[in-house]
Amino acid sequence: MSPAMKKTIGHRGIDPTGETTYKKTTSSALQGAIQLGITHTVGSLSQKPERDVLLQDFEVVESIFFPSEGSNLTPAHHYGDFRFKTYAPMAFRYFREMFGIRPDDYMYSLCNEPLIELSNSGASGSLFYVSSDDEYIIKTVQHKEAEFLQKLLPGYFMNLNQNKRTLLPKFYGLYCVQAAGKNIRIAVMNNLLPSAVKMHLKYDLKGSTYKRRASVKEREKAVPTYKDLDFMQDIHEGLLLEGDKYSAVCKTIQRDCLLLQSFKIMDYSLLVGIHNVNQACQEQASEEAGAVDQRRPQGQKSLYSTAIEAIQAEAGSMGSLDTEDKTGGIPARNSKGERLLVYIGIIDILQSYRLVKRLEHSWKALVHDGDTVSVHRPSFYAERFQKFMCNVVFRKISCKSRISVLAGVLKTNFAACTSMRIMQSGRPDLLPKTLLASDAVGTTTETAVSSSLENPGFASTSHPLPHSQDAYKSVGVDLNNTLSKDQEHSTTKR
Amino acid sequence: MSPAMKKTIGHRGIDPTGETTYKKTTSSALQGAIQLGITHTVGSLSQKPERDVLLQDFEVVESIFFPSEGSNLTPAHHYGDFRFKTYAPMAFRYFREMFGIRPDDYMYSLCNEPLIELSNSGASGSLFYVSSDDEYIIKTVQHKEAEFLQKLLPGYFMNLNQNKRTLLPKFYGLYCVQAAGKNIRIAVMNNLLPSAVKMHLKYDLKGSTYKRRASVKEREKAVPTYKDLDFMQDIHEGLLLEGDKYSAVCKTIQRDCLLLQSFKIMDYSLLVGIHNVNQACQEQASEEAGAVDQRRPQGQKSLYSTAIEAIQAEAGSMGSLDTEDKTGGIPARNSKGERLLVYIGIIDILQSYRLVKRLEHSWKALVHDGDTVSVHRPSFYAERFQKFMCNVVFRKISCKSRISVLAGVLKTNFAACTSMRIMQSGRPDLLPKTLLASDAVGTTTETAVSSSLENPGFASTSHPLPHSQDAYKSVGVDLNNTLSKDQEHSTTKR
Repeated sequence: MSPAMKKTIGHRGIDPTGETTYKKTTSSALQGAIQLGITHTVGSLSQKPERDVLLQDFEVVESIFFPSEGSNLTPAHHYGDFRFKTYAPMAFRYFREMFGIRPDDYMYSLCNEPLIELSNSGASGSLFYVSSDDEYIIKTVQHKEAEFLQKLLPGYFMNLNQNKRTLLPKFYGLYCVQAAGKNIRIAVMNNLLPSAVKMHLKYDLKGSTYKRRASVKEREKAVPTYKDLDFMQDIHEGLLLEGDKYSAVCKTIQRDCLLLQSFKIMDYSLLVGIHNVNQACQEQASEEAGAVDQRRPQGQKSLYSTAIEAIQAEAGSMGSLDTEDKTGGIPARNSKGERLLVYIGIIDILQSYRLVKRLEHSWKALVHDGDTVSVHRPSFYAERFQKFMCNVVFRKISCKSRISVLAGVLKTNFAACTSMRIMQSGRPDLLPKTLLASDAVGTTTETAVSSSLENPGFASTSHPLPHSQDAYKSVGVDLNNTLSKDQEHSTTKR
Repeated sequence: MSPAMKKTIGHRGIDPTGETTYKKTTSSALQGAIQLGITHTVGSLSQKPERDVLLQDFEVVESIFFPSEGSNLTPAHHYGDFRFKTYAPMAFRYFREMFGIRPDDYMYSLCNEPLIELSNSGASGSLFYVSSDDEYIIKTVQHKEAEFLQKLLPGYFMNLNQNKRTLLPKFYGLYCVQAAGKNIRIAVMNNLLPSAVKMHLKYDLKGSTYKRRASVKEREKAVPTYKDLDFMQDIHEGLLLEGDKYSAVCKTIQRDCLLLQSFKIMDYSLLVGIHNVNQACQEQASEEAGAVDQRRPQGQKSLYSTAIEAIQAEAGSMGSLDTEDKTGGIPARNSKGERLLVYIGIIDILQSYRLVKRLEHSWKALVHDGDTVSVHRPSFYAERFQKFMCNVVFRKISCKSRISVLAGVLKTNFAACTSMRIMQSGRPDLLPKTLLASDAVGTTTETAVSSSLENPGFASTSHPLPHSQDAYKSVGVDLNNTLSKDQEHSTTKR
């Protein structure tokens, strides 16, 4: 980061030497404390016997003091005395296990190599790090966000156990570094967009149109994060998915939205990263510089699996043209028939506490978008979000579009892409041989796609979200009336 | 029930016609209301779309009024106006699904045949019914018990998702019949001891020795429910299990106890029903009246699976002598080598609210048993319970006892038992042919078993329950200290 950029945003600032600071702690000291702390907490946890997670585990906070001179439990260090707190250690151990992360791998990835500070941290005032192996994101979170995540944990547990294919952020840990009278809380999460895969397009989508266009400044970046209005303009035919994949993505989004709505969470986004396979092939051919950077070790377990997991269960052998992808992208097509890998995840779910502050803006935005019933805002938000994702962003591939997809495939220069395909698919035997053999040239002239006509619209077809008027009625009416009339003691509310 | 028995215990009484009453409602009216209510609630639930269970679903209460003249939602009836409440309908639907119970089967079993009132209801003042097909127990529960079960539901959900082989009661539903200004709350549970299988011995075990002997009155019954001291006297060698089954039972008890302890639950029991296969064979031979009553339909899915489920995952192909049993009993042996089927489950977990009232008694009992640290009573109770079950009640079968088991098998009159064995096992091909073929008579003289020497004691070997001094430390210390010093708002406690 250039020392010229002196701006302080929120708790994030720059010190006289040009180093980033957070609450006046330098980034390097914070990194050091995080690495010492996580090493200690994961190590001490592994010595505790396996047991089931209990309800009260969500509220536990473990704390250990790291004097700079060292103690019999902690090593000496040069970051100044600090205290390291681990929130709900047993619960997060369980979550990591559910996500298939071994304690050793977790500790190794986060603590044995330097963390990489992301210079492009955005307007939130948070500091972001990514682990050297690209697996984990560490993000500073505000006090209220940490508090909210703790409150969310029982519901998060329930969601993980029922909806294994969730697109919600994977929370691997919540910690706090206490130093010089300040608390710096951090969350460890999955890295949704692996840097090893070049994203040709990136979108932050909410389903709103109010002020949802990337700023001029954002557009100057190499890969800007575009917004809803940009998407509608640039990809007006949407991202085309095979039927089973489309259903699975929409069902997962619906289930996630229900959980978010139940916690009155709004303002979350769907982060969409699009890797254009055809474009990558051309780039590779012309540059001979890999569009896909090979940094990532081959044998490593993919953690970028959020997106593909969301569809794996339903994605049967429907004779898809798309081969399996190891990086977890969902195979899709654009209207030109180009092969895409789409990476998606729901982000920014902890910021509900901002609700009050941002009420005016939200209110305007919702009125602008037609919400006249302000009491139902979380359900309105969820419903609009789902509709947008399942009617505008994702569309079911139709017979007509399938033909043009074939055309697109044929137009691709296979020769230039062979190595790319093998790397991507790991299954060169899955190349569409029949297509190459057959003479499908007659169809190549048809490039128009009208999938939107075949797409009956998600929200109107199946499983409406049970909000206010529906299955939720009983919740609304009876939630505080859990026991009968002759009740003498007030029910413990949770 | 004879009209002579006029005694009122708790809310249970007898009216002038001799019919049982509960809170002055006749048993027949209560049954009618329960059946109408469950029919309605299960029916209306099946019309709601499938969705994930949310945290707030545990607190929902649905309510419907049944006027005797009928309404557009409810049929006319002759039980007097009543209101029927269903607690946490979505959550219990999820639990029933987890337990493999289809909505139709549930409704049919409970509502399409008369419920059978159990005359032998015990001293609690509760009224018990069993469904005609023997699958379900309906029990009236007190206000505080219902309240407690509701509070327990999130922890119960977590336990079911982690510890699928739990021995805790299977709660299928919690309802309330409101009539004539009274609330009658009922819980629907699994029937732990199927009447189709004759129990030769029955025990209610707590791990305590204080006053834990069946009363003279209890002993007069055909099959009394004996207690801890009786067990130690009658079955001093314990119930012998194969090694893998022993480990699985003890591990499950340990996990269940941890949950109970976390909810500060005490005074629960392990209900143990023992079917002696050898004895049943002899009885069958001499009486020609089936010791196993054939009432239960053959094709029906066994719900008496609590006990066997607890060991199924670990019970590999260890060359067990015991064949599979359809009724869910755990194959075991007594010290004479006789084949047993053991049915177990943890019962009476909702009565913690009695704690205050019964403090004096509990206190005495605990002091008598050596508990001097009264603050740790739930953990003390849990630990003593586990130790008793895994050191006294269940023992690992040893080589020595295995030999005497063979002897016992050989002594059995196979000819008299053929039909029995086939019915029990459903796998006549699994009969121990090699044993019959080989000449093991030389070992038949050895009948003494000393398995207790080979049993190193469960509690002292593996995974101590993490109570006060242990992994629980952090819970005890930090439970109320979930956020850091600069916290401005008090954390919402759950």
